[in-house]
Amino acid sequence: MNTLPDKTVERLCKYRRVLYNQLSEGKQHIFSHELASLLHITPVQVRRDIMLIGYSGTLRKGYDIQDLVTLIGEILDTKDGQKAAIIGLGNLGSSILGYFNGKRSKLAITAAFDIDADKTNRVYAGVKCYHIDELEEVIKKENIKMAILTVPAKESLQILDTLIMSGIKGIMNFTPKSLNVPENIYLEEYDMVTSLEKIAYFIKQNSKEG
Amino acid sequence: MNTLPDKTVERLCKYRRVLYNQLSEGKQHIFSHELASLLHITPVQVRRDIMLIGYSGTLRKGYDIQDLVTLIGEILDTKDGQKAAIIGLGNLGSSILGYFNGKRSKLAITAAFDIDADKTNRVYAGVKCYHIDELEEVIKKENIKMAILTVPAKESLQILDTLIMSGIKGIMNFTPKSLNVPENIYLEEYDMVTSLEKIAYFIKQNSKEG
Repeated sequence: MNTLPDKTVERLCKYRRVLYNQLSEGKQHIFSHELASLLHITPVQVRRDIMLIGYSGTLRKGYDIQDLVTLIGEILDTKDGQKAAIIGLGNLGSSILGYFNGKRSKLAITAAFDIDADKTNRVYAGVKCYHIDELEEVIKKENIKMAILTVPAKESLQILDTLIMSGIKGIMNFTPKSLNVPENIYLEEYDMVTSLEKIAYFIKQNSKEG
Repeated sequence: MNTLPDKTVERLCKYRRVLYNQLSEGKQHIFSHELASLLHITPVQVRRDIMLIGYSGTLRKGYDIQDLVTLIGEILDTKDGQKAAIIGLGNLGSSILGYFNGKRSKLAITAAFDIDADKTNRVYAGVKCYHIDELEEVIKKENIKMAILTVPAKESLQILDTLIMSGIKGIMNFTPKSLNVPENIYLEEYDMVTSLEKIAYFIKQNSKEG
C-alpha cells in the first residue's frame, strides 16, 4: 500500500483507539455513524477512510471491530514493533512515560534520558533512565528510531543534532521551539500555548455572538 | 471581523509565538518566506493569512514584527484577558502549569484542582490548588471560562458535567477518552498515543522506500 496521507493516518490511529475501548466494553460490531460520533467527525469521512484501507462492513451489523483493529494494525504497525526514547524526564516526560507504556503492543518507550544525575541509572515505569551524554550510544545500540523531546527549549537544538547523528527517524517535539529537520526525518510538534490560545479565541467569538 | 477558520487561528497563534521569539532576538522585520520557513509551511500560506487579517508588509523590509504581533493580539485576545483552570495536578498538570504561566499576558491559569488532599490549599507555580469538590464554586466565583483536563480517563465524564454546569466554555482534553460536549462549548483534544503512532507509521513507510 502506498503511503497514506497524514490526516488519514491520524484518523486511523484514532479509530483504533476508540475500537479498543469498544472491544473492552464487550462490543463486537460498530456502525460508521457510531464511530463517527465518538470522534466528532462525519460518517462519510469514516466510510471513506475504511474503504481506502480496503475494508467493508455489512449493512445490518456494521464493521466487525476485531477485524478492523487487526487490519489497522497491519497498516500502522511493524511486525517487530518500534522503539521510542524519551529525552528529558521532568514532569512532562514522566507523565508521558507513565501514560504511554502498555497502551500499544507494537510501540514502546524503551529508554529515557536526563541531565540530572539523581535520575540517571534509575528505572521509571519500567524504563531505564540514562544520562544525556549516553544518548548516541544507547540509541544506536538499542536501534531506537523515535524520540520524544521534552527538554527546555534552549537545549533542544544541540540534542537534535545528536539525535540525527544517532539515526533517529521520527521526532515528537514538545519543546516550545520549532525544529528544523532533514527531509528524511518525520517531525511532529505540539505546543500547548497554541492550543489554549485557539480555545480562548473561540470562547471570545462565541461570547460575542451570544 | 467574522470568526476565522480553525486552522487559520492555529496558524495565527503560531505566527505570534515565532514573532515573539524574533523580537526577543532583536529583529524588527521579517519576510513571509522567513516566517514560513520557521513554521514549515509555504510563504503563500503565510501571505494569505496575513492578508486575511488586513495587514501587509513592504517589499523591501517585509512585515514589521511589533505591528504584526499587536494586530494578532487584537484578533486573538480579549481586552481583560481570559482565565483557565487546570483540573488534575499530576505530572502532566504540573508540567503544563509550570510551562504556561507568564508566556502570554492575556491568558493565565488562575486555579488548579486535584483530588489529593496533600496538594490542595497549596500554591504551585503561583497558582492555588483547590480540592476538586470546590470546582463549581471557584470557577463561577472567579469567572473562569477555560478548563484543561488532565485527570484519569474514568473521572473525566463526571468532571465534564460539573464543568458545563459551572459555565466553562472551552475545554482542552488531555485524557485518553474523547468527550462529547454541547455545541456552545469549544473542545480541543490531544492524545499522545495517536501522535506517536503517526510518527511510527511514517518511519515504517520511509524505511520501506529507503
